[in-house]
Amino acid sequence: MKVGIIMGSQSDLKVMSEAAQVLEDLGVEYELTIVSAHRTPERMFEYATSAKERGIAAIVAGAGGAAHLPGMVASMTSIPVIGVPVKSRNSIDGWDSILSILQMPAGVPVATVALDGAKNAGILAAKIVGVTDEKVSKNIEDFMKEMKDKVLTSAESVETDGWKSKI
Amino acid sequence: MKVGIIMGSQSDLKVMSEAAQVLEDLGVEYELTIVSAHRTPERMFEYATSAKERGIAAIVAGAGGAAHLPGMVASMTSIPVIGVPVKSRNSIDGWDSILSILQMPAGVPVATVALDGAKNAGILAAKIVGVTDEKVSKNIEDFMKEMKDKVLTSAESVETDGWKSKI
Amino acid sequence: MKVGIIMGSQSDLKVMSEAAQVLEDLGVEYELTIVSAHRTPERMFEYATSAKERGIAAIVAGAGGAAHLPGMVASMTSIPVIGVPVKSRNSIDGWDSILSILQMPAGVPVATVALDGAKNAGILAAKIVGVTDEKVSKNIEDFMKEMKDKVLTSAESVETDGWKSKI
Amino acid sequence: MKVGIIMGSQSDLKVMSEAAQVLEDLGVEYELTIVSAHRTPERMFEYATSAKERGIAAIVAGAGGAAHLPGMVASMTSIPVIGVPVKSRNSIDGWDSILSILQMPAGVPVATVALDGAKNAGILAAKIVGVTDEKVSKNIEDFMKEMKDKVLTSAESVETDGWKSKI
Amino acid sequence: MKVGIIMGSQSDLKVMSEAAQVLEDLGVEYELTIVSAHRTPERMFEYATSAKERGIAAIVAGAGGAAHLPGMVASMTSIPVIGVPVKSRNSIDGWDSILSILQMPAGVPVATVALDGAKNAGILAAKIVGVTDEKVSKNIEDFMKEMKDKVLTSAESVETDGWKSKI
Amino acid sequence: MKVGIIMGSQSDLKVMSEAAQVLEDLGVEYELTIVSAHRTPERMFEYATSAKERGIAAIVAGAGGAAHLPGMVASMTSIPVIGVPVKSRNSIDGWDSILSILQMPAGVPVATVALDGAKNAGILAAKIVGVTDEKVSKNIEDFMKEMKDKVLTSAESVETDGWKSKI
Amino acid sequence: MKVGIIMGSQSDLKVMSEAAQVLEDLGVEYELTIVSAHRTPERMFEYATSAKERGIAAIVAGAGGAAHLPGMVASMTSIPVIGVPVKSRNSIDGWDSILSILQMPAGVPVATVALDGAKNAGILAAKIVGVTDEKVSKNIEDFMKEMKDKVLTSAESVETDGWKSKI
Amino acid sequence: MKVGIIMGSQSDLKVMSEAAQVLEDLGVEYELTIVSAHRTPERMFEYATSAKERGIAAIVAGAGGAAHLPGMVASMTSIPVIGVPVKSRNSIDGWDSILSILQMPAGVPVATVALDGAKNAGILAAKIVGVTDEKVSKNIEDFMKEMKDKVLTSAESVETDGWKSKI
Repeated sequence: MKVGIIMGSQSDLKVMSEAAQVLEDLGVEYELTIVSAHRTPERMFEYATSAKERGIAAIVAGAGGAAHLPGMVASMTSIPVIGVPVKSRNSIDGWDSILSILQMPAGVPVATVALDGAKNAGILAAKIVGVTDEKVSKNIEDFMKEMKDKVLTSAESVETDGWKSKI
Repeated sequence: MKVGIIMGSQSDLKVMSEAAQVLEDLGVEYELTIVSAHRTPERMFEYATSAKERGIAAIVAGAGGAAHLPGMVASMTSIPVIGVPVKSRNSIDGWDSILSILQMPAGVPVATVALDGAKNAGILAAKIVGVTDEKVSKNIEDFMKEMKDKVLTSAESVETDGWKSKI
Repeated sequence: MKVGIIMGSQSDLKVMSEAAQVLEDLGVEYELTIVSAHRTPERMFEYATSAKERGIAAIVAGAGGAAHLPGMVASMTSIPVIGVPVKSRNSIDGWDSILSILQMPAGVPVATVALDGAKNAGILAAKIVGVTDEKVSKNIEDFMKEMKDKVLTSAESVETDGWKSKI
Repeated sequence: MKVGIIMGSQSDLKVMSEAAQVLEDLGVEYELTIVSAHRTPERMFEYATSAKERGIAAIVAGAGGAAHLPGMVASMTSIPVIGVPVKSRNSIDGWDSILSILQMPAGVPVATVALDGAKNAGILAAKIVGVTDEKVSKNIEDFMKEMKDKVLTSAESVETDGWKSKI
Repeated sequence: MKVGIIMGSQSDLKVMSEAAQVLEDLGVEYELTIVSAHRTPERMFEYATSAKERGIAAIVAGAGGAAHLPGMVASMTSIPVIGVPVKSRNSIDGWDSILSILQMPAGVPVATVALDGAKNAGILAAKIVGVTDEKVSKNIEDFMKEMKDKVLTSAESVETDGWKSKI
Repeated sequence: MKVGIIMGSQSDLKVMSEAAQVLEDLGVEYELTIVSAHRTPERMFEYATSAKERGIAAIVAGAGGAAHLPGMVASMTSIPVIGVPVKSRNSIDGWDSILSILQMPAGVPVATVALDGAKNAGILAAKIVGVTDEKVSKNIEDFMKEMKDKVLTSAESVETDGWKSKI
Repeated sequence: MKVGIIMGSQSDLKVMSEAAQVLEDLGVEYELTIVSAHRTPERMFEYATSAKERGIAAIVAGAGGAAHLPGMVASMTSIPVIGVPVKSRNSIDGWDSILSILQMPAGVPVATVALDGAKNAGILAAKIVGVTDEKVSKNIEDFMKEMKDKVLTSAESVETDGWKSKI
Repeated sequence: MKVGIIMGSQSDLKVMSEAAQVLEDLGVEYELTIVSAHRTPERMFEYATSAKERGIAAIVAGAGGAAHLPGMVASMTSIPVIGVPVKSRNSIDGWDSILSILQMPAGVPVATVALDGAKNAGILAAKIVGVTDEKVSKNIEDFMKEMKDKVLTSAESVETDGWKSKI
C-alpha cells in the first residue's frame, strides 16, 4: 500500500515535504508530485480517478488560499483524502485554506489537519495504512513512545536543573 | 450573448433565482441549471469547457460551505466567472463560502459578490454583456435611476411625514 | 473491522447519529457510546487505550466547545481518530470546537471534518475500512454514484420545468 | 476597448501595478491613475461618471482599510467595476478592505478579487474585454496554457529528481 | 445648533430612530432624512457639502453591509461625523458595517459607535453640542444621573427581595 | 468566607444566577447585587475597594459588550476576580465581552470563563474557597462524581437500548 | 477650549503622539498625560470627573488589549470622549482593543476611531472644537485641501511619468 | 501552600517562566515541570490526580494550539486550575489556544488569562493563595502599589518634560 502526496504548487513543498519525511520514518511507501486544481484541472481529474487502481491507499493533498485540491480529489475517489491547509503568501491568517478544505458538504469528506500540519497528515496516512499493516502500526507506536520519552527527559531536566538554566 | 447560471444544489435555488430574475428584468438571455463540483465533477468539467462555444458570455456560479464550483469553473474557461457565496445550513457565518470563492490564486480570478448576493451577480453579468450591448447598458442605467428614485421618494416621505409615522 | 463512535454527551447524539446511520448504510460494523473527556476522563483513557485490541479500526469522536475528546483519544492510540466539531449551545459560532479539534500539535493528528459533519465522519471511517475491504469500497462507490444521480435528476428537472416552478 | 485602473493612494501602486502588467501581457489597452474616495471625492465623481463615455470598458479599483473607492465608483457607472482589497498598513489582517469592498448592497455590484489580488483583477478585466474581442480571448487561453505547462514542468522535475533536491 | 441624522435606507429607520429619540429627550434640535451613498451619490455629495452652511453642527450617519455613507460624508465636510454600523440582513455578523465605518484612513475620521448603537450616536452628538451649550450639557448630566438611579434601584430591589424573585 | 457576585445590569441575572445556584449547591456563602461599571462607577469603586474587608474571598463579575466591570474591579482589590463574558443583545457573537474581559494587561488578572459560563464561575469560586475549606472541597468532589455518574448512566443506557431509541 | 489626551501607558506614546501633533498643526490647545485605568484607577476617576471644570472640551483616550480607559472615562463625564484602539504587544490582531472600546452599552458612547488611528482622533477632536471655533474649522478645511492637493499632484505625476517609473 | 506550574513543552518555557518569576517575587512557593496532554497523557493523569494530596493549592497550566492540558487537568482535580493560552508557532493568531482553554463545558472551569499572559496567571495563583495567607495578600497589595507608582512617575515625567522628549 502506497500513499500519494500532492500539492498545488512547488512553493508548497517546504511544508508538504514533512508528510513525505514522516512516511519514510514510519516505513510507509509514498509517491509525491505536483497537481494543481486551478492550473491543471485535467491532470487533477486523471490523478484522482486513477489513484485507487494505481495502488494508492490514501492521498495527502495540500493547498493554500481558496484550496480546492483536497476536496475536488475527494469527490472523485473512494479512497480517503487528507487535506493540509497551507498558509499561502496572501492568506488571511490561514482561515481561507482551512475553511475551503474543512467545510466540505455532506457526502464528500476531507480529513483535515492543522494549518501547515503536513507532518500530521503523513502520520494520519500511516495510521490508515497501519489499520491492516501491523509493521506500520508498530512503527507508529514506537514513534509515539519516542515523543513521550522526549517529554519525560525534558521534564526531568527542567526539574533537576531548574527553569532558570533553560532560558 | 447569454449568461449561464449554475449552482451546486437545488437548495441554492432560492438565493440563486435572484440572479435569473434580475437578468430577465434587464433583458439579458440566460440559462440556469444545477452543476455540483463535488457530486458531479465530470458534469462540471463538461459545462465549463464547453460554455464558451455554446455562446455563454459569462457564468454566474453559486455554492455554499467549501464552495469550489466558481473557482473550478473559472480554471477551465476564458470567459468571466462570477461567484456567489451562499450561506449554507452549517456554514460558519458565511466565512467558509466567501473565502473559498474569493481567495483564488493568481491567474484564476473569480468575480466575487456579497454573501447571498445573487442579485448583484446577475447585475454584474448584465454589466459585462452591456459593455458591447447598448440596449442592456441602457436597461442598467434605467435600473440605477429607478433605485435612485425610490430612495428620493422615501426620503421625501420621511421628511414630510416625520420618522415617527414610519415605525 | 469495526468503527467506534463516541461523543461527549447525549446531547451530541442528534448530530452524531448521522455517522452511525451512514455506516449502517455503507455496511460497516460499528459501536456507539458516550465518553466524556471532562466528566469521565478515566473512561476515556480506558476506551482509547483498549480500542485497538477490541478490534476497532477507526474512532469517530464528536464534541463541542473546548472539545478535547478527539485529540485526547488520538494521543492514546495508534488507530486513526476522526473528529467532529459539534456546535454546542454556547459555542462561539462553532469556532471553539473546530479549532480545539483541528489545531493538534505535530505528532498527534485528528482527521477533522466540517462543523456538525458527522455524516462525513462516518463516510471517512468507511473509506478507511474500504482501503482493504472491497465490499465497503464498492458500497462507497455506489453511494457516490447515487449522489451524482440525484444531482443529475434535479438538474434535468430544473432545466425542463424551469426554475420558477421550483420556488 | 480600454480598462481603467485606479487606486486610492500611490502607496497602493506596488500591489496595483500587477493589474497593469498583466493587461499589457494580455494585449489589453489601459490607463492608470490615482483617485482617492476620501481625499478627492469630486475627482472620483468625475472619474466614475465620465468613464463610459471616455471609452472605458471596465474599471479596476484598489483600496485598503475602509475601502470605499470601488463601491462608490460602481454606484455611478453602468460599466463593470472590479475591486481589489489592498492590505494597508494598519489593516486588521485585510478583513476591513475585503468586507468594505465585497459586501455591497443589492443593486450595486463590485466584482471583488482576493486580498492584494490585483493580477487577478487585471485578468478579470481582460476576460470581460475578451467576451467580444477574440484576440484578447486567445491571449487569455495562451496564458492559461502557459500556467498549465509551468506546473507540468515543475511536476515532472519533482518526480524525476525527487523532492529532496528541491528544498 | 442642529444635528443631521441620515441613513442609507428606510429599513435602517428602526435602528436609527433611537438617535432621533434621544436627541429629542436631551433637547437637541435635529433633522432626519434618507441619503444613500450607493443609490443617490449626488444627493450624498449635496448633503455633505452643504451641511455646515445649513447650520448642522454634527452628522449622525447609519448604514449596513459595505457601509460607505459615514466615511464618504466625512470626506466632504469639516464638521464631525458619527457613524452607526447597522447590522443588515445579509451582514456577516455586523463585521462588514463595523469595519467599513471604523477603519477610515488617516485624515478622514468617523466617530464610530457600537453595532446598532444609534442611541449612543445621538448622545455623542448631544455631547458635541453640549461642549458650548450648557443647557444640553446639563441635560446629559441629568440623563447620566437617571441611568445611575435606575441601576441603584434595581440593585436595591435585588438585594432586598433576593435574585430568585427576579427570574 | 463569602463570594461576591455582581453584574452590570439586571438583564444579566438570567445568566448570572447560575453562579449563585451552584454556590448554594456547593455550600458556599455568597452575596449578589448589581454594580454597573459605566452607570455607577462610584458604586463599583466602593464595592471593589471594600470587598476584602467585608470578608469577600473572591468576586464573580459578569458583563456584556465592552465589558469593563471584571477588569476594573480586579484593578482595585487583591482578592481573585472571576469574569463571566455575557452575550448581550447587540453583541458581536460574544467576541466583545470575551476579549474585553480576557485580554487584561500584565499585572491585573481576571480569571475568565466561557461565554455565559456563570455556572463555571461559581464552581471556580468554590474551588478557591475549597483551597482551605475541606467541607467545600469535599462538596466539589461529590459534584464531580455526580457528573461522572450521569455520563456513565447515559452511556450505559445508549449502549443497552441503542441510539435509535434516544432520538 | 482645550483637548485632553490620555493613554494607558508610556508605551502607547508612539501611537498617541500623532493626536498631539495633528492638534498642534490644526491650532488646537491640548494637554497630554498618562492615566491607567487598571494601574491608577483613582487617578482615572479624578481625571474624568474634573475634566470639564478644568476647561477640557473633549478627551482623546488611547489604550490596548482589554482597553477600558476610554469607556470608563466616558462614564464619568458629559464631554465627548474619543477612543483610540492601540494594538498592543500581545493583542489578538487588534480585535481586543477595538471591541472593548467600540461596543459600549447604550447610554455611554465612545467615539471610536481606527486601530492605531490617533491622528484621526486628533482631527476628530479638532472638528469638535471647530463646531464653534471658526479658526479651527478653517484650519481643518485647509488641511483637507492639502490632502486633496497631494493626491492630485501624485496622480498627475503617475499619469505623466507612467507607473513604471514609480516602483 | 504551593502552586504547580506545568506546560505542554519546553518551548513554552519562555512564556511560562513569567508565572514562576512573579510567584517568586510575591513570596509564593511553587514547583515547575513539563507535562504534555498529548505526548504524556498518563503523566498528566498522574499529575492532576495527585496534585491536591501533594499540597498543591492551585495549578497554572500553559499550552498552545489545540490546548487540552488546562482543561484535562481541571477535569481531574478539585483545586483551581489557571489556563495560559500560549501562541504557538502555527497558531491561528492565538484563537486556537484561547478557545480550547476558555470554552470549557459547564462543570469543569478553567480560569483563563490573556494570550501569553503567564505573568497574570502567576498573580492570579498568588491571589488565590492570598485569600488565607495575609503575607502573600500584603505582597500583592505592595505589587499593585508599585505598578501605580510607576505610572504616576512616568505621567509626571511626560507632563514635565513634554511628550516630544520621550519619542
